[in-house]
Order: sequence, then C-alpha cells, then structure tokens
Amino acid sequence: MTQLLPQLSAIVSDKHVLTAAEDVAPYLRDQRGRYLGYAQAVVRPGSTEEVAAVVQACCAARTPMVPQGGNTGLCGGATPDASGRAIVIALGRMNRVRALDVENDTISVEAGCTLAQVQAAAAAAGRLFPLALASEGSCQIGGNLSTNAGGVHVLRYGNARELALGLEVVLPDGRIWDGLRGLRKDNTGYDLKYLFIGAEGTLGLITAAVLKLFPLPKAHALAWVALPDAESAVSLLSHVRAEAGERLIAFELLNRQTLEIVLQHMPGAQDPLPGAPPWVALIELADTDAAANPLELIERILRSALVSGKLSDAAIASSEAQAKALWALRENASEAQKREGISIKHDISVPVSGIPEFLRRAEAALAAAFPGIRIVAFGHVGDGNLHFNCSMSEAAANAALVARQAEVNHIVHDIVHALRGSISAEHGLGQLKREEIIRYKAPLELELMRGIKRAIDPLGLMNPGKVL
Amino acid sequence: MTQLLPQLSAIVSDKHVLTAAEDVAPYLRDQRGRYLGYAQAVVRPGSTEEVAAVVQACCAARTPMVPQGGNTGLCGGATPDASGRAIVIALGRMNRVRALDVENDTISVEAGCTLAQVQAAAAAAGRLFPLALASEGSCQIGGNLSTNAGGVHVLRYGNARELALGLEVVLPDGRIWDGLRGLRKDNTGYDLKYLFIGAEGTLGLITAAVLKLFPLPKAHALAWVALPDAESAVSLLSHVRAEAGERLIAFELLNRQTLEIVLQHMPGAQDPLPGAPPWVALIELADTDAAANPLELIERILRSALVSGKLSDAAIASSEAQAKALWALRENASEAQKREGISIKHDISVPVSGIPEFLRRAEAALAAAFPGIRIVAFGHVGDGNLHFNCSMSEAAANAALVARQAEVNHIVHDIVHALRGSISAEHGLGQLKREEIIRYKAPLELELMRGIKRAIDPLGLMNPGKVL
Repeated sequence: MTQLLPQLSAIVSDKHVLTAAEDVAPYLRDQRGRYLGYAQAVVRPGSTEEVAAVVQACCAARTPMVPQGGNTGLCGGATPDASGRAIVIALGRMNRVRALDVENDTISVEAGCTLAQVQAAAAAAGRLFPLALASEGSCQIGGNLSTNAGGVHVLRYGNARELALGLEVVLPDGRIWDGLRGLRKDNTGYDLKYLFIGAEGTLGLITAAVLKLFPLPKAHALAWVALPDAESAVSLLSHVRAEAGERLIAFELLNRQTLEIVLQHMPGAQDPLPGAPPWVALIELADTDAAANPLELIERILRSALVSGKLSDAAIASSEAQAKALWALRENASEAQKREGISIKHDISVPVSGIPEFLRRAEAALAAAFPGIRIVAFGHVGDGNLHFNCSMSEAAANAALVARQAEVNHIVHDIVHALRGSISAEHGLGQLKREEIIRYKAPLELELMRGIKRAIDPLGLMNPGKVL
Repeated sequence: MTQLLPQLSAIVSDKHVLTAAEDVAPYLRDQRGRYLGYAQAVVRPGSTEEVAAVVQACCAARTPMVPQGGNTGLCGGATPDASGRAIVIALGRMNRVRALDVENDTISVEAGCTLAQVQAAAAAAGRLFPLALASEGSCQIGGNLSTNAGGVHVLRYGNARELALGLEVVLPDGRIWDGLRGLRKDNTGYDLKYLFIGAEGTLGLITAAVLKLFPLPKAHALAWVALPDAESAVSLLSHVRAEAGERLIAFELLNRQTLEIVLQHMPGAQDPLPGAPPWVALIELADTDAAANPLELIERILRSALVSGKLSDAAIASSEAQAKALWALRENASEAQKREGISIKHDISVPVSGIPEFLRRAEAALAAAFPGIRIVAFGHVGDGNLHFNCSMSEAAANAALVARQAEVNHIVHDIVHALRGSISAEHGLGQLKREEIIRYKAPLELELMRGIKRAIDPLGLMNPGKVL
C-alpha cells in the first residue's frame, strides 16, 4: 500500500494526485454535509487509459476505489468511508465532447462533462439533450448515469438510463469495456450498459457515453393551475397527456406548504393565483413545429378540465419572463426548504394513480404519530415521484422530530412499500438508504444483486459500502 | 430423469404434458423451418406457481429447459437442441391481462398474451401499446420481451425493453422474482429487469410484465416518398424529425428491388409513383390532438424537402384504404421475398448516419465477390436497421450463392462491424448467430455475459445453446 501513491503519480503526474488536506477536503464531504470520509488520495485522471491504469494499480494493491463526478449526489454515494483506505477517482478532467452526430441524433461525451455542457453542445447543433436537474451546472454526466438521474422531463424523455445508447466502462480490474455504440437496435446478448447505469459506481467506472439527442422544441406553453386536491392532479395529468400527447414535457406538483415557504424565503416570489389553493400544478407543453400553437392547445385543454371540475383556476404565462418566474417557484422549493430549516426528506415514487392514496395515508399516519407535523410535498407527479419533507415549525419541536428520523422514515416508507412504490425514486441508495432498503427489498432481489456484484467485482473494491 | 415426467404431470396435469409426436411437433420446429429439435416433453403450465414448480423439478433433475412463447422467432431461440433431453416450457396458457391502470398508463399482462391481445386491451381503455410486428397475431409478449422485439415504431416508442416497467421472472432454480413494479422512477439498486429482457430465456423465464401505455393517436398522415439515393433518406429523416418531432411514428425504407418483388408477387399491388425511383420511404405521422392536422404538416415538410432536393416525388394517402395499401407494400416485403425464393438474410443496424456508407460498401463488396448478386434491402431506417437479403435471380446461380452463405455473411457483417454496428439489430442471436457473434463481440464483453450467466444460472439449465 505504501507504494501505491508513487505509482498513481507516475500515471497521472504528481499534480493530479491530491493528498494535502485543503486539496482533498472538497472531495471528502457530500454536498448536503451529511457524510465526511477520508481517503489516501484523490486522483484526477485525464483519459480513459489513465483511469484504467489507476484502477489496475488500485486493484493490484487491493485498495478500494470511490468514483466521483460533480459530487452533487444526495445519498453520499460519492463520499469515501471513514477508514481512509480508499482512493477517490475524480473524473472532472475527462470533460471532452468526443463527437456529435446530428443525423444519428447522438452525442458522445466523457464522464466529466457537466450536464450543462452536454445540454449546450446539443443545443449548438440544433438538438435537445433533455436531462434537466437543479445541479446541472456542476453535476457530471458520468454521475448522472451512475445514479440514473431523473429530473423534471422524465415523463417525456425518460431517466438517464433511457437516454444512453452506449457506454465506455473501466472494470474493477482495470480493463476497459468499449460499449460505446450509438445504435437504436442491438440484440446481440445481455444489455450490459443498463447494469452499469444506476449502479452508483459499484460495478465499474463509467468513463464515456453515447447519449440520445432529440429535436429541439420551438414553441412552448406554461400553465400554473390551482387544484382542489391531489386526485384532481392525477386526473388532470391523465387528461392533459391524452390530448397533448408527448407535447407534455413537465407536470410538477406543489402543496400549499411548499409554496408558502418559497414565497416566504425567496425574495420577489409572488403567488400567481388568489385563494391559496391547497395544490398547484406547473404544466409545460413544447412543440418542435414552429408553426404549432401550444398556448392555444393548453388553453383548450384546461378549459375543458375546468368544466369537468378537475381544476379550480389557472394562469398561463404570456411571456418568457413570466414563464421563468413560474418555474422559479418550483425550482426554489429545495432552497426554500433549506432556509426554512432542517427537515426529514423522502424521495418516493408510487404508481401515478397511487399518489392521492399515498398522500392520504402518509399524512394521516404522520399526524397521528407526530401531532403538528408539517409536510412540504412537491415533485414530479407525472412520474409518480414526490419529494416529501417533514418538519415542525417550532425549533425545539423540530429538533425532537429530527431525532426520531428513523420512525418518520419507517412510517412513510412502509406506506410506499404497501403501494408497491420505491423509497428512492431518483436519488439512489448511496450510504443513506443502504440499510433502509434491506427492510423493503425482497431478499431474493438483494441476493441477485450481490451475485452480479461478485461476478463483476469479485474483490469488492468498487465503491464499497454503497448500494449493497 | 425417468421420474421427471410424472412429477410434471402432477404439477400441470397429464393434459398439459405433451409427449405424443403429433402433439409436440409444432413446438420442436421454428417458424422458418431452419431448426428441428427434440424434447422429453412439452409442458404447458397455467400459472406462475406452476411454472415455478416445473422449473424446480427440472432443476432438481438437472434437465435443460427451453422457454417458448408464440414460436415466431427468427433465430431458433425457442427450439430445443437435437439431444432430446430438454423440457420445452410453453407459456401460451398464461394469457390473462392481470390489470390495466389508466391513470398510471400501465398494463400488467402474463407472458402468454399475444401481442395483438395486449394492443387490443390497451385500445379498449383508450390507450396505445405501441409495439407492432408482422407476427403480432401469434407472437407472445413474453417472447417479445425475451428477444427485446423491435418493429416499425421503435424510432418513436423504443424497443420492447424500453416499454417494460416491471417483470415477474421464474429463476433457473424455480424461485419467483417479483419485480412487477409499475414505477417510472426507481433507483434502488441494479436494474434486474433489463437483464432478463433480451436474454432469450437464458437467465430465467419471464412469466408476467408491467408495460407502459401511451396516449392513443387520433389523427394520422402517411406519405410515400421517392428518393434519389439512401443519403437523401437519412437527410429527409433528420428533416422530418426536426419539424414533426415525436409525431413521427414510422420511417421505413425500401430499395427498388424490394418493391419490384412485392409488385410481382402480391396480387393487386401497385406502384404508387411513376419513374421507378431507386428508393422509397414510407413516412407516418400521428397526433394525439384530434384537432391537429398532420396531413397539412407532412405536406408542408415534404414541400420544403422537395425544394432542397431531398426527395424527387411524393404521394400522400388521402383515405384509410390508400394508407393500408401503402403499408401493405412495406409489410409484404418478407412474404414477397419468401415467394421469390431462398435468400441470405441479414438483420443489421448501424448508426443512422452510417446507412448510406453501409449500403455503398456492402453493395460494392458483394458485387465484386458475387457478380450479378441481387440485394433486397428494406427496413427501419429511423433505427439504422435494415433487412438486407442477398440472392441471384437464376435458380442454379442462387443455389450456388446460398451454398456460400458464410462468405456472404462475413462480407456484410465485417462492414457492419467496421461501422460499429450490430449483426442482429432486432432478431436476437438464438442458435442462428451464436457462433457468428464470437467473430465480432469483444472477448471481454462475452466474458462479462458469461459471468452473469454463471451468477444467475450456475447449472446452465436455461435454454442452453442459445446466445452464449
């Protein structure tokens, strides 16, 4: 082990083997400040070959490896453990767009490209790369793929997994798997790429990917809709989708409590509709046909929904500035929550049709166990995915609640499980939910996952302590 | 082994353990008549529990199992080998639609449902299940998933793999993995379903699935377009997709030779355009908005493409009967090929942008090696997927060509490989391409596949001799 660092320096040069406390610090703590780990060093390879050589050296030294992208994950998946034995392999220097093929609608990128960089490269070629997240300016595409990132356009374009056609992966022994294919159809055996995507770096290290591009929408329409209850949200979603089809690119939901904290903490934020409706939805249509009129379409759809009682009021953005302001109300939900104070967060999904029942059961059970509990619920109802945060308004009561986080989690997650949902819809397991998942996932499924882990990483060196 | 059949009878009843020659015959030969196998028996379980018990008994007896759906595969993946040791497990009795959730846009079906049955159940609920294939009346959804079936709508809706949200699988030891989740987002570990899909029954036996549904299109437009060359097809596709977006649900291509044999062999078939253009494309738009006018849109798009020289002529279907007749010209390509005589078939894909180069290189190399060779090329250019059939018009010359099939395959597949394409785009490997793939797939990738196979099916009992 003593010889490993010089070997790594020989591969990537001294400059890219970080060991000084101030240099490594940003890599050892997760974004939320929940996890702090230690590492022998942080290594920053600049090419796939360097990654392969680094992994080979670590493997020979039986040294655990922690791949890291933009370090924006929410479950501690990219933070090393406390042992200090690991080498963090940070991919940020591998940030080239290798190729863009307009006629194949694909872009080939290295893992360290930021999501925003991929979006911009696509847009410059008149195409859309539709993955969109709050952290898009700093998260890296390798991390997006490793965590199968979601975001606001999943109902239309799918998760990160559905956006990848090919991968380049450095395996746990340092060999390079070149699966960088840009094919829409390829039925020549097991689809390995889908295994590495979402594995949170536990099966290998994604170094590059071929991603799907889409036609760039040329016309947009955005509506802010007041709803009497969550049932109406689901029924309105179904109605909009049936009429607008795949023009529907976002359908977000916020409860009153969410909007209240946004209005309170975000300077300049204004409630778009009167009457403090209990739920609001943000609905976006987009069309690739420049001559199309999605504004007229959303108006027509909402008018018929109003008649049938699916909504109580609606406002439609009449300018880009208005649209931005409406989106900001949704996008600032997490930041407002942070300013409001600590909360117990959940990232759940259930079948879309089960959203109202989940809310009813979870709110009732929590209110019974913790009278006065406050629920900030918002998210991607089109994917059946809600961020569901629990807190108390009074500080001491909140501290007492937070001390009982495990109980709160179990109440929420037991209901999710009963509705055949997921306790981690888009954030992954990482360290945060590695124990919690054992409560819910069938032992047989965990056994299959462990069997695959052993088959691909028999020494257990890739990101140990995460997922499994 | 002598005790296995009574055990199987005890599980599914005598009636569903077929051993008489005339009863088993339809299960032992593939649709194209290329493969003939033998089996101890054909077992027809009626429930997941029966499948599990059958698999457990076979596993205990160390008896190979061959799962079979509608037996419409094109690569011999569902035909047992010549040893006669295997038990064929035919899923046709498991044909219930278990649930349809309109608000979640999902349908839960058993493996033995025919594709047409799934399509019809979706349509009855005002939804679309978009998988569409020539054999849809008899192929079964379990087989579609096991082979990751493609078809004519992949460019818009994806392959079978992209259409599944959850699976129920009987593992090689007879245990049941219940992964029947209807979730759009679930990031709780490795995505096992994507491994079983496309595995051609070599990792387990799919017994049920939760599938995605889509809004039902309410307006259609179909165009038949004459093209000077394959470059124009790719460039027109790019143009149509940029303007029409996801209204584009099919973009099929036929070369002159394909159309000629269809016109010759299909009674009543008529050439829609004069001048015998070297290539024609069939382009379909669909819209979920009943008030939309896709006819006007396709006319507008084609007019601008005509001006920029991307096409030479076009006809737009003005009635449903006309649209049917145009589609029939495409759909009868395989049948016309059969009537024309034996040919050497390929099911290739390359990046969409590589289609013209593939055609140029393959046609030149084949013409040089086999002067007078005739190419019938047609398929899903929107997916970079062509069916590429080679023959000679004169019978003796054709027999001589067919005798040299391996040489022809290598010429075509070497070019596909050089363009980073796939030698089996949508038909799978089965028995047909199990050897051929070793020539092209990286040894590391085969090693990873074998590692996964060992991890999940350590005794190698599931569909031996297929894929790997």
